[in-house]
Amino acid sequence: MNTPDRYSGSDTDRAARVALTWLVEPGHRLVWSMVQADGAPGTLDRLLGGDCPDATLRTAVLAKRDKLDPRRFAETTLNRAERLGARIVVPSDDEWPYRVDSLAVLELDTPGWINQNVRPPLCIWTRGGLRLGETLDRSVAVVGARAATGYGIQVTSDLAHGLAENGWAVVSGGAFGIDAAAHRATLAAGGRTVAVLACGVDRPYPVGNTAMFERIADVGLLVSEWPPGSEPLRHRFLVRNRVIAAATAGTVVVEAAARSGAAQTMSRVLALGRAAMVVPGPVTSAMSVGCHELLRENPGATLVTNVAHVLEEVGRIGEYLTPPARGPEHRRDSLDEESVLVLEAVPARGTITTDELASRAGLAVRTVLRRLSLLELAGLVVRRDGEVALSRGSGAAP
Amino acid sequence: MNTPDRYSGSDTDRAARVALTWLVEPGHRLVWSMVQADGAPGTLDRLLGGDCPDATLRTAVLAKRDKLDPRRFAETTLNRAERLGARIVVPSDDEWPYRVDSLAVLELDTPGWINQNVRPPLCIWTRGGLRLGETLDRSVAVVGARAATGYGIQVTSDLAHGLAENGWAVVSGGAFGIDAAAHRATLAAGGRTVAVLACGVDRPYPVGNTAMFERIADVGLLVSEWPPGSEPLRHRFLVRNRVIAAATAGTVVVEAAARSGAAQTMSRVLALGRAAMVVPGPVTSAMSVGCHELLRENPGATLVTNVAHVLEEVGRIGEYLTPPARGPEHRRDSLDEESVLVLEAVPARGTITTDELASRAGLAVRTVLRRLSLLELAGLVVRRDGEVALSRGSGAAP
Repeated sequence: MNTPDRYSGSDTDRAARVALTWLVEPGHRLVWSMVQADGAPGTLDRLLGGDCPDATLRTAVLAKRDKLDPRRFAETTLNRAERLGARIVVPSDDEWPYRVDSLAVLELDTPGWINQNVRPPLCIWTRGGLRLGETLDRSVAVVGARAATGYGIQVTSDLAHGLAENGWAVVSGGAFGIDAAAHRATLAAGGRTVAVLACGVDRPYPVGNTAMFERIADVGLLVSEWPPGSEPLRHRFLVRNRVIAAATAGTVVVEAAARSGAAQTMSRVLALGRAAMVVPGPVTSAMSVGCHELLRENPGATLVTNVAHVLEEVGRIGEYLTPPARGPEHRRDSLDEESVLVLEAVPARGTITTDELASRAGLAVRTVLRRLSLLELAGLVVRRDGEVALSRGSGAAP
Repeated sequence: MNTPDRYSGSDTDRAARVALTWLVEPGHRLVWSMVQADGAPGTLDRLLGGDCPDATLRTAVLAKRDKLDPRRFAETTLNRAERLGARIVVPSDDEWPYRVDSLAVLELDTPGWINQNVRPPLCIWTRGGLRLGETLDRSVAVVGARAATGYGIQVTSDLAHGLAENGWAVVSGGAFGIDAAAHRATLAAGGRTVAVLACGVDRPYPVGNTAMFERIADVGLLVSEWPPGSEPLRHRFLVRNRVIAAATAGTVVVEAAARSGAAQTMSRVLALGRAAMVVPGPVTSAMSVGCHELLRENPGATLVTNVAHVLEEVGRIGEYLTPPARGPEHRRDSLDEESVLVLEAVPARGTITTDELASRAGLAVRTVLRRLSLLELAGLVVRRDGEVALSRGSGAAP
């Protein structure tokens, strides 16, 4: 049971996470569960040995393994990383952005591989001088159409400028249009900006934004789950979007065409209990049709027109995250065995210290602390002054 | 108990309603209740004789009476009406717009005279060739800022044109800007348009729209609670707004400045259970700030961007009105004695015919039918194929 902890944060653990992310696209539900149960090195051993309950996954992994040794790939990549200006961050590191762990309990009703495999990153590559966790801790995503209008660019610039002035980091996807406007205005305001990429941080896409990416690497952060050298494959933008939704306190969509990817992003933001914000526009503009669709179809989404509205939304959930939109049963069902042990050791009434909890659960204090973070993000327990209690409506009370 | 019915629709009744509306601003809670209890002629007798439980009202009525005899005023006005091209419609007339009766049970939480005195009109003056009730039966209000932008005018014209093409009458307030654009586009599309005025139908305000008003009088309807000759006093626009909200299936606000009168209109629309619709616009436009405020502050308001969205909303409540937003207790509290008798005669389970109901309640069938309309509007009973039943959640069932 303590296998995961033994390797956590070690070179072996880092290398295994790099190899696993190269071997299987990040977010994979089964692989993430296996890592939770057996640790990254153990999971890599199992997968490479053909020990995998999912036949499709097993076949894909073995085919990939036969072309290039994943352990060799990881070793090479980690050795090249410093030269490429890239660092790797894993969950046991201090600068791990805790919010992405909410993906551990995210359940979406929408069918499709991309909606079912939304588990947290196994590792995050970064390039830049900021600390990842601290920067994302107080961050808002501002995203939207590539084919943005002058109106969209203006509103995005105003919002990003205002967020920077108020000490919030601005996260976006590095694309043309709204994304680039958000990054650029933040840079111009002397603020912190983070580009979450769907390719390696050494070769940010699109090439047309290269000068901007270099500036972000200087004073902000380039971020990616995929190892340096990875290509921006089409499906990776959708996989990447779950990280933008989860890592920030809220997401603002500024312009979006009809039936655009904004709806997918917004469904994740809402299901994660983050602030889902949408800027309206002229009903005569095709680039606002998607925004109005979002507002009409998502009662949980909030219409925002200026930075004060955005700060009102993210301020509200800034101190502690609201639980995901799904009911407690769903949340409990998706817990791993250790989390269940911890949850069941919390008394039905009153509070308990983490030391007592570890003793009651028969687990190491460190394990308990890690599981508590997850349980807290899932809205199942609350922590205050070092004491732990079941949250109301957690479904865990008798 | 049958006093009101004896005079209903008679010349005496009409004259009394004209006199009462001249004597006391329409919507007055107490005056309306007195008319429900004693009929219009009886109420006029009481008020002119100083028999009034409200000292302020009594003083005001007697002061006005001493300047000009209200009965003389009504007689003169009714005699001049035909020459002025004006007709009067009272509740017992076939063409009475039944929706305005919902104001009988409207309760607003907002303090202030204007929010507490929102009872139905005692009479409605019209000028034009359309039948009032039939026209308003299938109507949508399109209202907004006087200082409209080109964007607002364009969107209003498109909406009004689309409503006209779909057989809906377009109701507005005759003002410059959005109102005039709504009327004009409907006229241009060959549709039916109704201007609800805050002054006499013989002297529509503003004078700058005179040509438009003449055209509306030709092919649409000019409508007012105030008798011909009445001035558009400032407060009358607010009193008038309740009729626009109540008489239509829904209201669309196209452009509105910050903290404009649109919020007052929208609160009435929502409280009446009508479709409350708002068109967004550029967040950079001062004329859309009020619209975005409405959408942010009223979860019941719907963002609409085209006529299909509007038809979706009004179609939903087109067949029968949703009950007002207040709870059943409030609705029952505001019932007059006859309505309570009718309501209590409806069986707790199953249905009853109106004849049986009249017999059980000890009232005339005609009285029962009038009270049922009110009870149905209040969401307390439902009628189907001539049978009456308590509605679910009416608070009237044991």
